[in-house]
Amino acid sequence: MAFDAIETPFGKANKTVGGSAMYAAYAASYFVKPVQQISIIGYDFPQEELNSLTARGVQLDGVVTVKNKKSFFWKGRYHEDMNSRDTLVTDLNVLADFDPRVPEKYQGSEFVMLGNLMPKLQLSVLDQLKKKPKLVVLDTMNFWMDTAMADLKQVLKRVDLLMVNDAEARELTNHYSLVKAAKKIMEMGPKYLIIKKGEHGALLFYKGKVFFAPAFPLEDVFDPTGAGDTFAGGFIGYLAKVNSISFENMKKAIIMGSVMASFCVEKFGNARIKELTKADVNKRIKQFKALTNFETTF
Amino acid sequence: MAFDAIETPFGKANKTVGGSAMYAAYAASYFVKPVQQISIIGYDFPQEELNSLTARGVQLDGVVTVKNKKSFFWKGRYHEDMNSRDTLVTDLNVLADFDPRVPEKYQGSEFVMLGNLMPKLQLSVLDQLKKKPKLVVLDTMNFWMDTAMADLKQVLKRVDLLMVNDAEARELTNHYSLVKAAKKIMEMGPKYLIIKKGEHGALLFYKGKVFFAPAFPLEDVFDPTGAGDTFAGGFIGYLAKVNSISFENMKKAIIMGSVMASFCVEKFGNARIKELTKADVNKRIKQFKALTNFETTF
Repeated sequence: MAFDAIETPFGKANKTVGGSAMYAAYAASYFVKPVQQISIIGYDFPQEELNSLTARGVQLDGVVTVKNKKSFFWKGRYHEDMNSRDTLVTDLNVLADFDPRVPEKYQGSEFVMLGNLMPKLQLSVLDQLKKKPKLVVLDTMNFWMDTAMADLKQVLKRVDLLMVNDAEARELTNHYSLVKAAKKIMEMGPKYLIIKKGEHGALLFYKGKVFFAPAFPLEDVFDPTGAGDTFAGGFIGYLAKVNSISFENMKKAIIMGSVMASFCVEKFGNARIKELTKADVNKRIKQFKALTNFETTF
Repeated sequence: MAFDAIETPFGKANKTVGGSAMYAAYAASYFVKPVQQISIIGYDFPQEELNSLTARGVQLDGVVTVKNKKSFFWKGRYHEDMNSRDTLVTDLNVLADFDPRVPEKYQGSEFVMLGNLMPKLQLSVLDQLKKKPKLVVLDTMNFWMDTAMADLKQVLKRVDLLMVNDAEARELTNHYSLVKAAKKIMEMGPKYLIIKKGEHGALLFYKGKVFFAPAFPLEDVFDPTGAGDTFAGGFIGYLAKVNSISFENMKKAIIMGSVMASFCVEKFGNARIKELTKADVNKRIKQFKALTNFETTF
């Protein structure tokens, strides 16, 4: 969990609570409890944010607080298309010492999400699990492909599903075609693959099958920060709720991820994802059905 | 109808038959007969291509052949992403004198597609129609927004549906958000709006409703030339077949447009769209259903 400073064409937030573990936990908490989080924070991370997560059923036994260091800080500026951004500041702070430990209480988890982090640390978490989960989802980024590809390949062999964006899928495989990239990635280990395309939706690949979920068309996208993590949290949270990894349920889980991500971008930071009601979520699920479903007789 | 010279990362075609009227007519001919075309060609346009269109049920009474001039010629080069291209040569040739005349035989047409052309000529065609069609679809491009906006605004007031790409929708309205752009365009005249996003699919707007159809994920896109026109032909051809402009049928028509466009890009020029069988089309419709439909109970 972290602090972010964000500039978009619609405004700026100088210091907002961020981090993939925060976004994913909130999104998953709408579907399943408990959510068991592992992360690292500094002395400056607000207690009220921790309390808010706990109130949503997020267990924080795996969160280490470093008393004499600051939390990870990222500052970025989005371009007008909101699909690309410049990183202005990255202060690792506590993240430089992160050595994730799986609490005894978390053992036996069936649905595991490995957030975007140094592949060696993702491997360490997998090594600590005493029982093989039903589903391990991996997030990563181009930075690790450039700096730790050998380790990343090891992680890929041990996960069930990889979640990357289109540029990352291309970089990982040297294929421009996403269909070709998908085939190659699935030969590297993961049986399932999700390629996220930002405002252009997401593709799910499994064996010869492919499923597409659009992003919800919004009047305004105020801040895309955390949308991918919120998507991931909604996706795995829904699968944990139905306790299934069938392809039919994965389709519905992707829709759920898109629903949650569509809220995330409506306000800066975690403001929107914190305030959601069941009614908000159900209403948007209905809108998603109308957006994509058509009569199948031609 | 025209000649195109095309370069893509996959190869090149030095002289292939092109033009929006050709692509749209082929696509529509899979659904409805006759298709009645209006266009202009030079002495160099191949008779066998005209015969091939006639054999598919395309009437060419509205096609003027200029005996001492060449057909329109366009040469372009696509970038790796296939969504952007550079125009290398544009030879107007016969198109400089085009004054479309609606043959008496075509009067009473219920479904009219105004291809991308100078707005004054599109207005002239509308003026020649003795009976108001059930649906008039308009295609246009950024060039006319820059050079003939006043005329284009007149056309917009007299059509039912506008079909543009995302960049054109943004230019027409000065809104980056496609949802906002859609609202503004529908205030300019068209009740229905389709925004095409190339490989990222297409959006249909009508009143407060929105529907999204993905592009079919292909291993390789060899040549995007004509994909938008093929989409348009499949769309209006399907509506003409079912003789309806209900929103439910428009959804299915968009799927049909995407199906036809997905074939178009598989080979250079019109090679793929000419050789299709009913079985090919039906197979891809099934694949489209699998691509987007999900169980609606959560």
